[in-house]
Amino acid sequence: MNDAALDDFEAAPAEPGEVGIVAPCDYVSAEPFTFDCGITIPGFTLRYETYGHLNAAGDNAILVCHALSGDHHCAGIHSLSDRKAGWWNNLIGPGKALDTNRYFVACANVLGGCQGSTGPLSTNPATGRPFGVDFPLVTIRDMVRAQHRWLQSLGITRLHATIGGSMGGMQVLQFGVTFPDFVGKLLAFATTAREGAQAIAFNEVGRQAILQDPDWAGGNYPIGGGPRVGLAIARMMAHITYLSDASMARKFGRRQVSERRNAPHPPASPKSGHAFDVQFEVESYLRYQGQSFINRFDANSYLYISRALDQFDLAAEAGSLEAAFAPVTAESLIVGFTSDWLFPTDQNRAIATALLRAGKRASYAELATDLGHDSFLLESPELYDLVRDFLAA
Amino acid sequence: MNDAALDDFEAAPAEPGEVGIVAPCDYVSAEPFTFDCGITIPGFTLRYETYGHLNAAGDNAILVCHALSGDHHCAGIHSLSDRKAGWWNNLIGPGKALDTNRYFVACANVLGGCQGSTGPLSTNPATGRPFGVDFPLVTIRDMVRAQHRWLQSLGITRLHATIGGSMGGMQVLQFGVTFPDFVGKLLAFATTAREGAQAIAFNEVGRQAILQDPDWAGGNYPIGGGPRVGLAIARMMAHITYLSDASMARKFGRRQVSERRNAPHPPASPKSGHAFDVQFEVESYLRYQGQSFINRFDANSYLYISRALDQFDLAAEAGSLEAAFAPVTAESLIVGFTSDWLFPTDQNRAIATALLRAGKRASYAELATDLGHDSFLLESPELYDLVRDFLAA
Repeated sequence: MNDAALDDFEAAPAEPGEVGIVAPCDYVSAEPFTFDCGITIPGFTLRYETYGHLNAAGDNAILVCHALSGDHHCAGIHSLSDRKAGWWNNLIGPGKALDTNRYFVACANVLGGCQGSTGPLSTNPATGRPFGVDFPLVTIRDMVRAQHRWLQSLGITRLHATIGGSMGGMQVLQFGVTFPDFVGKLLAFATTAREGAQAIAFNEVGRQAILQDPDWAGGNYPIGGGPRVGLAIARMMAHITYLSDASMARKFGRRQVSERRNAPHPPASPKSGHAFDVQFEVESYLRYQGQSFINRFDANSYLYISRALDQFDLAAEAGSLEAAFAPVTAESLIVGFTSDWLFPTDQNRAIATALLRAGKRASYAELATDLGHDSFLLESPELYDLVRDFLAA
Repeated sequence: MNDAALDDFEAAPAEPGEVGIVAPCDYVSAEPFTFDCGITIPGFTLRYETYGHLNAAGDNAILVCHALSGDHHCAGIHSLSDRKAGWWNNLIGPGKALDTNRYFVACANVLGGCQGSTGPLSTNPATGRPFGVDFPLVTIRDMVRAQHRWLQSLGITRLHATIGGSMGGMQVLQFGVTFPDFVGKLLAFATTAREGAQAIAFNEVGRQAILQDPDWAGGNYPIGGGPRVGLAIARMMAHITYLSDASMARKFGRRQVSERRNAPHPPASPKSGHAFDVQFEVESYLRYQGQSFINRFDANSYLYISRALDQFDLAAEAGSLEAAFAPVTAESLIVGFTSDWLFPTDQNRAIATALLRAGKRASYAELATDLGHDSFLLESPELYDLVRDFLAA
């Protein structure tokens, strides 16, 4: 959105098709919550946002589940000076695929997160200090069980649908297995029923970058401090895995920063300390991604959530993915993207195949994009049409 | 090689097909060397090894060029207690594809390297201390020009062939362009005439991990010290890009370390400090790769050489790759590997296509492997046959 467009938007914050200004809320559960690992905490908070209105029957709600680095703010703006709308604003709003004129759309920051929900940054009632690494290990199922409690508190009797991409898709699948009578239609994009070794490997390098940063300090860093270097490195690397070779070639190619700045070639020697400075535009972009991430994300949360991703394995307990899906009652739409090399199409197709083998109603769509894993987040009329039709059917 | 096999080997170090015990040598050039960046040093050293014998005409030599993390030790062992032979030992030896009964095989650690050749670890004559980041920026062409000087000192009049994979392949191509009358046949594998944005991006994350490690200390760390954490992170990440999703799935899958140790599940909370410890075998493998790398590689060298990789762009100066290849006289064999996603097949094919368009004799072979970028280093009878036939033709 350029400045001119922003001015228009400020003049009409709730313009047609936009949810406008929204405010997050906190759900506080005072009931004890027992994690899959067996540890119980006295209660928890989930920060969330909703868009649209819940109908009298409490059955027009759509739950949006966010990805690793996402949060509850998936549509609208928080103030007129907000330059960026929620992360799935292109999907959610009046008349959009998740039509807030029809549906009550809700999204919560996950348990273990750092955007207001209970996680490693929260105060440990036992010590009066942040949990840090005293926070219990969290699983995708824990995230889902916490959200189930919150959704009931909103008066939702049964979801119309649950939707998410990447880790959001894992939650969608877990919801379908754990709360089959509550969950409604399942829409899972660019996801996997269990990561392969390569995805685990990338997460592990990110964790090591954090854990071995001296400022991690055993997880007991001060709020606002912490392993900024390690977290930025983790994010830079992960960000590459969200894109594709083709999209990076198109967006950056081998363009040098100096070509824009009209500056001379890089210095002949690093003597000045600048030879390893930014030379290529893609370097500048990645550094920016790393720096902006450390200003909004907690390193311990990153450790916990990335571990939850790695440990997610629907098939493991049941013996097979098909067996794991036995409880599912919902109809499912699984979407893979051809250029997604983090959670490749075959992993998405395998979900749909297992659902079908388990006798469930499932559709699989493979969208040809060259935008990589992040395709599910980006402008895609084809995806919107699929979602709209599937929700209405 | 298991222990039993090693015992056999120790009993017969020069057994048929093996070059046996070898010793590195140092070539010292006392002539000034001017880098592409314009900086001149009074001379340089290249550490090298040779296998086989140079004939009287001095024309049966094959130059082997190593990759980013490789070195001059590409065949044989250094002592009877050596448990690991040189990095291309499967290709080089009596009767092997690079047959040391016929050819005089030579390999030098590159200029800018850290295994004995002049690089950032070397003493800066101007200060009496290691160059560190006062070392001039080094290019692939600098590496090649330094090797050309060394090869002439060996009495080589004209190479029979030049061979290398990855960064070694870049040197091969550069050799063909810069020293067309000296270079002989060109064999370049799993390489590129210029990296794309994704490869640059991975290198940049590795550099940032090093540069932002407090122990990097502006590049002025003590020998044996330095940014061990950053270098290990860089290596772990890079190592993923040398493998493939399929080979990692086969080698590690989701196997957990505890399954082997027969230990119970990971702890429920990281309280003990162990929750982010190794859980999956792939994590253990990567940590080992990172740790062993920091014991043999210099962080500043990594910065310089990875920068040389990123800056290599044969087409840039000449306007096109076809134009860049105009001086080439040699016959070329370019080999791409289907599972190489670091320097994908299309980048290898583009080299052969440009050579052909420039009117040169070039062949392109695409080998179907699922071992990723490192395929060129691994056991491959198909590759050996290609090499053998191409050298003999």
